[in-house]
Amino acid sequence: MKLYGYWRSGAAYRLRIAFGLKGLDWEDMPVNLLAGDQQSEAFRSLNPIGLVPVLELDDGAALSQSLAILDWLDRSHPEPPLFPENPVARARVMAAGMTIAVDTHPLQNVGVVKHLKSAYGVDQQGGVDWMIHWMDRGFAAFQKMCEPNAPFAFGEEPSFADICLIPQLYNAHRWEMDLSSYPRLTEIEARCLALPAFEAARPENRPDAA
Amino acid sequence: MKLYGYWRSGAAYRLRIAFGLKGLDWEDMPVNLLAGDQQSEAFRSLNPIGLVPVLELDDGAALSQSLAILDWLDRSHPEPPLFPENPVARARVMAAGMTIAVDTHPLQNVGVVKHLKSAYGVDQQGGVDWMIHWMDRGFAAFQKMCEPNAPFAFGEEPSFADICLIPQLYNAHRWEMDLSSYPRLTEIEARCLALPAFEAARPENRPDAA
Repeated sequence: MKLYGYWRSGAAYRLRIAFGLKGLDWEDMPVNLLAGDQQSEAFRSLNPIGLVPVLELDDGAALSQSLAILDWLDRSHPEPPLFPENPVARARVMAAGMTIAVDTHPLQNVGVVKHLKSAYGVDQQGGVDWMIHWMDRGFAAFQKMCEPNAPFAFGEEPSFADICLIPQLYNAHRWEMDLSSYPRLTEIEARCLALPAFEAARPENRPDAA
Repeated sequence: MKLYGYWRSGAAYRLRIAFGLKGLDWEDMPVNLLAGDQQSEAFRSLNPIGLVPVLELDDGAALSQSLAILDWLDRSHPEPPLFPENPVARARVMAAGMTIAVDTHPLQNVGVVKHLKSAYGVDQQGGVDWMIHWMDRGFAAFQKMCEPNAPFAFGEEPSFADICLIPQLYNAHRWEMDLSSYPRLTEIEARCLALPAFEAARPENRPDAA
């Protein structure tokens, strides 16, 4: 499988973690977001909206949207599962993850912050404030939604919720966000990053890391 | 089932459509977003991030995040299915819907546009421009991702993709967006709105519609 991504893309990072948890190999296909390569005609033929990640399967089929790819992955490679089996428990794990992946991450994507600056005259600090504002909202909610006393966000093993959380925390560190209000999240992060699947997925370990 | 929503909330509208397609009844529990009722302690005990919709099941369990609720719904009430059975086809329908529900809708949520105005001094027209900018990106991509010659976005029946598209088009009309570049989407919209499940779900038919 070829993973079109970018070392700092949180959505691509999610997939790398999931591949690692499932014991699957992937090939990194770096797309330079800062150079705008995601807007090229070649890349848009894989994903018309011009966003990473895209997963190219061995038969050439191209899948986009990290959450749809995670759904495909968990169905085609069910072990270990990314969700608990109980339907309500599954919905809760998914909702916590989506509090990050749907309500937080899309607001602070590269293109969004770029548009905020170019069309509204917002400066660099204003862009960082914007990202941190939405991360605060998302982290505060996630911390209330996850289990208070489990090793991972929910239960004894990493789940979809941890897969969404860890890349967002990477971004929070990048922008030097104060995380002192989120001790439960940084505790989960430490536990996740000690696992080989998370370690191998880290942005710093990508071929295109600058 | 009690659906905490708001007549104009696109995410609550998605769920109403899906309930209708599945032949399920629900009770509307209006949350006045303009009055800020979604930030109340009572509502945040149902969903810590303070966003609608929330679905309260008959046993009192509260589910949040419309996409997680749709996943729960399609598993607990499988007929008619919201996705095709083939795994790659399923991933494509999901990706098209998420191009709207993940990459478009969260950027033009009430709270986001409000923050753009209050923290960055953006005026009413600037807020509308922001929403239309992201809808343009999402609609252009969706139009390329859906099937070119099917009655609905994918195939002969409405799917998850149509469920995500129709509420976003409602918002586009609300802000008088020029949709002339998206003939395929307005054609899908006309076909969907002629169905009872979509008609019954319309914002105008809610008890809290103003």
